[in-house]
Amino acid sequence: MDDFTFKRKRSVGNRLFSRTDTPKKRSNLEGGYVSTSLRKHNDEEFDGDVTEWTMEGTGSRVAYDDFTTIDWIHDFAKERARQKRLHQQKGIRGRLNILFDAMEGWIVVLVVGIASGILAGIIDITSDWLSDLKEGYCETAFYLNRRFCCLGYDDEQDECREWITWNSALQARSVAAEFWTNYLFYIIFSTLFATTAAYLVKTYSPYSAGSGIPEIKTILGGFVIRKFLGWWTLVIKGIGVCLVAASSLCLGKEGPLVHLACCCGNIIPRIFPKFRYNEAKKREVLSAAAAAGISVAFGAPIGGVLFSLEEVSYYFPFRTMWRSFFCAMVAAVSLAFMNPFRTGKLVLFQVVYDRDWHAFELFFFALLGVMGGLYGALFIRMNLKIAAFRQDSWLRFFSVHEVVFMSVLTSIVSYLNIFMRVNPSELVANLFRECVGGDYHNLCNHVNHWKPTLLLLIASILKFFFTAFTFGLKVPAGVWLPSMAIGACFGRAVGLTVHAWHMYNPNFWLFASCAPEGRCITPGMYAMVGAAATFGGISRMTVSLVVIMFELTGALTYVLPIMITVMISKWVGDAFDKEGISDGWIRMSEYPFLDTKEEYVYNTLASQVMTRVDDLIVITATGHTLDSLEKLLNSVDYKGFPVVHNAKDMLLTGYISRSELRYAIDKAKKKPGILLSSPCYFSGNLPILDDSIFIDFKPWMDQTPITVSHKFPMEMVIELFKKMGLRYTLVTKKGQLLGLITKKDVLRHLSIMYDPNSSEDDLQENLMMLPERRMSSFVGDFGID
Amino acid sequence: MDDFTFKRKRSVGNRLFSRTDTPKKRSNLEGGYVSTSLRKHNDEEFDGDVTEWTMEGTGSRVAYDDFTTIDWIHDFAKERARQKRLHQQKGIRGRLNILFDAMEGWIVVLVVGIASGILAGIIDITSDWLSDLKEGYCETAFYLNRRFCCLGYDDEQDECREWITWNSALQARSVAAEFWTNYLFYIIFSTLFATTAAYLVKTYSPYSAGSGIPEIKTILGGFVIRKFLGWWTLVIKGIGVCLVAASSLCLGKEGPLVHLACCCGNIIPRIFPKFRYNEAKKREVLSAAAAAGISVAFGAPIGGVLFSLEEVSYYFPFRTMWRSFFCAMVAAVSLAFMNPFRTGKLVLFQVVYDRDWHAFELFFFALLGVMGGLYGALFIRMNLKIAAFRQDSWLRFFSVHEVVFMSVLTSIVSYLNIFMRVNPSELVANLFRECVGGDYHNLCNHVNHWKPTLLLLIASILKFFFTAFTFGLKVPAGVWLPSMAIGACFGRAVGLTVHAWHMYNPNFWLFASCAPEGRCITPGMYAMVGAAATFGGISRMTVSLVVIMFELTGALTYVLPIMITVMISKWVGDAFDKEGISDGWIRMSEYPFLDTKEEYVYNTLASQVMTRVDDLIVITATGHTLDSLEKLLNSVDYKGFPVVHNAKDMLLTGYISRSELRYAIDKAKKKPGILLSSPCYFSGNLPILDDSIFIDFKPWMDQTPITVSHKFPMEMVIELFKKMGLRYTLVTKKGQLLGLITKKDVLRHLSIMYDPNSSEDDLQENLMMLPERRMSSFVGDFGID
Repeated sequence: MDDFTFKRKRSVGNRLFSRTDTPKKRSNLEGGYVSTSLRKHNDEEFDGDVTEWTMEGTGSRVAYDDFTTIDWIHDFAKERARQKRLHQQKGIRGRLNILFDAMEGWIVVLVVGIASGILAGIIDITSDWLSDLKEGYCETAFYLNRRFCCLGYDDEQDECREWITWNSALQARSVAAEFWTNYLFYIIFSTLFATTAAYLVKTYSPYSAGSGIPEIKTILGGFVIRKFLGWWTLVIKGIGVCLVAASSLCLGKEGPLVHLACCCGNIIPRIFPKFRYNEAKKREVLSAAAAAGISVAFGAPIGGVLFSLEEVSYYFPFRTMWRSFFCAMVAAVSLAFMNPFRTGKLVLFQVVYDRDWHAFELFFFALLGVMGGLYGALFIRMNLKIAAFRQDSWLRFFSVHEVVFMSVLTSIVSYLNIFMRVNPSELVANLFRECVGGDYHNLCNHVNHWKPTLLLLIASILKFFFTAFTFGLKVPAGVWLPSMAIGACFGRAVGLTVHAWHMYNPNFWLFASCAPEGRCITPGMYAMVGAAATFGGISRMTVSLVVIMFELTGALTYVLPIMITVMISKWVGDAFDKEGISDGWIRMSEYPFLDTKEEYVYNTLASQVMTRVDDLIVITATGHTLDSLEKLLNSVDYKGFPVVHNAKDMLLTGYISRSELRYAIDKAKKKPGILLSSPCYFSGNLPILDDSIFIDFKPWMDQTPITVSHKFPMEMVIELFKKMGLRYTLVTKKGQLLGLITKKDVLRHLSIMYDPNSSEDDLQENLMMLPERRMSSFVGDFGID
Repeated sequence: MDDFTFKRKRSVGNRLFSRTDTPKKRSNLEGGYVSTSLRKHNDEEFDGDVTEWTMEGTGSRVAYDDFTTIDWIHDFAKERARQKRLHQQKGIRGRLNILFDAMEGWIVVLVVGIASGILAGIIDITSDWLSDLKEGYCETAFYLNRRFCCLGYDDEQDECREWITWNSALQARSVAAEFWTNYLFYIIFSTLFATTAAYLVKTYSPYSAGSGIPEIKTILGGFVIRKFLGWWTLVIKGIGVCLVAASSLCLGKEGPLVHLACCCGNIIPRIFPKFRYNEAKKREVLSAAAAAGISVAFGAPIGGVLFSLEEVSYYFPFRTMWRSFFCAMVAAVSLAFMNPFRTGKLVLFQVVYDRDWHAFELFFFALLGVMGGLYGALFIRMNLKIAAFRQDSWLRFFSVHEVVFMSVLTSIVSYLNIFMRVNPSELVANLFRECVGGDYHNLCNHVNHWKPTLLLLIASILKFFFTAFTFGLKVPAGVWLPSMAIGACFGRAVGLTVHAWHMYNPNFWLFASCAPEGRCITPGMYAMVGAAATFGGISRMTVSLVVIMFELTGALTYVLPIMITVMISKWVGDAFDKEGISDGWIRMSEYPFLDTKEEYVYNTLASQVMTRVDDLIVITATGHTLDSLEKLLNSVDYKGFPVVHNAKDMLLTGYISRSELRYAIDKAKKKPGILLSSPCYFSGNLPILDDSIFIDFKPWMDQTPITVSHKFPMEMVIELFKKMGLRYTLVTKKGQLLGLITKKDVLRHLSIMYDPNSSEDDLQENLMMLPERRMSSFVGDFGID
């Protein structure tokens, strides 16, 4: 069974979005759609939906289908029309309506922020409890996790008597029995959790699998995936992420937290029609929700806003930025209010250093940056290869079995290395810490550095492979925290080594800047820098990542080394592949996502990329009947039709998409007095011949489509698509329709141009082949069947 | 004398950018520019400048004139063409060139960052020294300021014996003599500094006056103001800002620091042709420099980046964001390295609180927010009125005298109130501080609250008026810090009052959440919140302001109250006027700035705003000679000409602007074999008649201008201008040229639509009048004469 119907269409070469089974239809200009009978204009034909603003402009629309791109321009026009109507209201009541309308946005983000914060708190507490269940249970109250159970005990000194480990519960007699009991319980619980999560996902909500970030990016970029951010996803992913975070799988809960926050950001605004019926406005709230997600995942509200701006959002005006910031802050405050760790920290791995870094350490940080970049490049390639194999092979029918297998394997191996056994966020927290007032997992043992160093290195290598195989399983899970854990292990190992070097050779020239007494090296900071490096390598974030790390430490001092490391990590990673893990998954899943960050450079013209008018179905403005249009729709499955003045001059009049035409026809048929033979028109300037009824399709047509000249460079066309959020543009030459470029055409063009496996010659060849290949493509929105 | 030629054209009603003295020229379609002789195509006519990429696309260009808007599309196309050429280079050398090209951007921002940091450090130290000179001098070394002179002394305990105050230098005998000596020296030095600054500005660099932020916004929005960011401005503004900051004038040095950083950002990239010859690329560096400016002005690198993004930058891709962040960080580190205050702080008013806020305090913070908003609205109106009066009246001939007068007046009054006497940044620092381990200006006197409270209130009111009158004088100065000082005074006064209330009524229900013992209220935090409120009220910044304040305190705890205050302050301020101080100055100075943040809602169509084809000079593609074109240029001063296929069909072919046409004609005339009667063509498809020489103007013409339909809603046209950075768009109907919309037309349209003094009826009337009025306008770029 395959859960993701929209993921199935794996790319083979350049078949992207093309449908080879589409019947090749030629232009209908010589067909039966042209006649000359003209009747009285009847603008009131469609009363309910057609408001004054649709008379001119982008036309009236029906709701978007699933798996289609939204029309930003249309949605903004709709919102502006709503605003106009609102501002036309006079008096106190009108003023109050305007005020309430302005407040709606703030109320929504307030509630979304609070919901995200509470959700994150609940998940933190629950996953902690489940995770601790692998080791034991609380005697006083089984529903308490270890931290809450042992409140009042000093973590370092006293032993907590309320906390019963499984070996003492079962009264294991010998040391060996104790070990095996704990080992067994660890494996059993871990596998139980992971399997439950996989089963829930498979049975109830396939959309809950994975981190959700690639899909959120795509949705925010203007694609409709119904139910992806619905109630069911929220519930199942919420439960699933607790289970997975508690299991031994090398996965994190940070990505899913963003997905869950976005679910809140989708469900809560539904109460206001302003957001419910406008996909573009909805995306403003989703951007804020994504910021709130990062805010609670990393305790970094500013980092969250920048993440939303830099990584996921497509359309991000300043009003949205301010609201996102508010949302992220509210989420952070809500989480702080829940205080899930009883430490006052928002996340476990917040840290404070009291030692500064030295200039010579920049060398080691740079080294960590290189490692982070290499890690990122290698991980992404490997993970995508594995994921592609999983999708294409028999493995895809055994998603739950696979989880069971990976879980058992990971548990067996992980238990033997303390750095793999503990929860990743606890691990990262312990690795980040300075060696002040406590020892964690023997990390602060000043006598024998080699044992923890070796264990850390083993942990980072094994974790790398486990994570690469695990991320992509059909369980709710992210890859950010495991990446940070890998980097933190490696970084701490490097830090311990440098520390040992300094201890044994304090007078070495490299350490001249160290104070003569006391510790000079802070291995915890190496762990932090290492984590930033791997996080950067895998996500290719820049500003937002540095700000997130800054907010974890709270001191400006550490920003410079982190920034340099992230920079190097990104450079090294980009030298291999330009894309981060989420972009990689977007590419692999073939989501129609147009990256606003990329800049494209080449020599193509609009006329080389467009679908030529010969390969399109073009409608003339006059000469149709309901019957002929109905037949047209039934005979072809093109998603939209350019409208021209007449077949001879080919002067562009507008564009109507399939769903609007369909809807308008169905609606017209229900009207009294309308016959199948009633003439239909797409033009406003109709001479009045007699007074019989005809149907005016103008309100459903985009009467002002954006047009480009055939000589327009393709780079500019792409800019237009990116910046204006177009779905399509029509190519004209002196007013005559020459062709159509859809977002899909642009994406296909980019995929051909930027295929990493093709050489310069291939590109040229592809370009030559383009018109040929396009013959078989269909036109209009993205339709994935 | 008027220093700002480009500021002189004060708006009277809607005359903005229109030139009533332009001779009304009708279309030349029936004129003498149409003939039919066609000659051999000669593409190699212009060799040096015309590269392959200009053959199709936006055409070749000459450098921008002063006070013209840049063509983003063209500059990006130019950069892409350069990239293409670069990437065509093969081998090691080619690779190295690509690498070096990629590094150039980073090297530039690195150097800009370092320069900004060092500059800020020097200015901090110098202005401190000058400021201290008002009180005395250092005996050991006259060039040391008080802080450096007294290094080693404990500020609180010991008296610094090296520091000689003027009264002791002159051996004043009595207390009265001491007072009058100090008072006199204060007035003399203060006036001396201010006068010197005014004289320098007037004589050497008029562009150094003011904060520079409005101009920088305009420049980044795509306007060319030559020398505004040059060497001379850097030097004079650098010296001037030290002098002004040391005088008693109510002005700050934060805005000028941004201007100075932008000067560095303009001068340093000149060494690389990539930036020198591309105005769009230059603006990327300027954005980074603006971030560095805020970074050193407020010790807030992240706030700087967000300021650059939110406030000043027009075009801000993510690559620029990452570089801006790097630049801002480098600037902060450089400044930290200079350590100008010997405290490790980047700016004097960084602060750490060790007490948390209580929920009931949010009420007082909200109150401060309201006050901040009122302050902002009132200040902006008053300041703009005063500035307008200054520009229009005889006062403008006495800019230095005015500075002398204001300086004497301010000094006389300021010396009598301790909160007005001290340097504003020192004042803000002291007001922000908690009352721990020291008393500043009696603020922590727990017995008598009323005296400091009263003095603070007086200071805030007087400072308000002084600042409103002073900001706009022809000296280098900003208004942010004085605003913060006013808010801090008021906030601290509120804080002291609440503190006194709590002290005398500790059991009042409001204070139930206070700890039973010890201090509950932190008046310093009130000062900070008050400063944020007034800063927000005057600048209308949101996210960047909150982040700047967050970076001043370093703790996430205080973000929520600051955010709520800034939000309220903005709402209250926006209820009066939507624009911040810099937008107000932009409007008053009539800079052609199209605000990307605004969203516009109304019912206009492109055809209602365009300059109609009848009111334009339109060139036909064929039928010209060098002589006829020359005559055309001499007879009209339109800034650009649409090109149509022929006078009959009016099909749009392209657009050529005056400067390119001028340049092309001049160049052609120098070629051997070219006669004044040589035919000139603007079209590529020329039938070959005979082999005599003709001139092809096609490479100089924008062959793919962006066109819109006449029914296009004006909101969408504005979006196109904003997002694509257009200079002009041509309005067509089925390929036929109907009219032209320039950026100027858009701005004029907005100024009519959003004139705060016009009612709904006026708007309608204005709309009706538009075509009439446009008759007298001229076409093309902004030209200010």
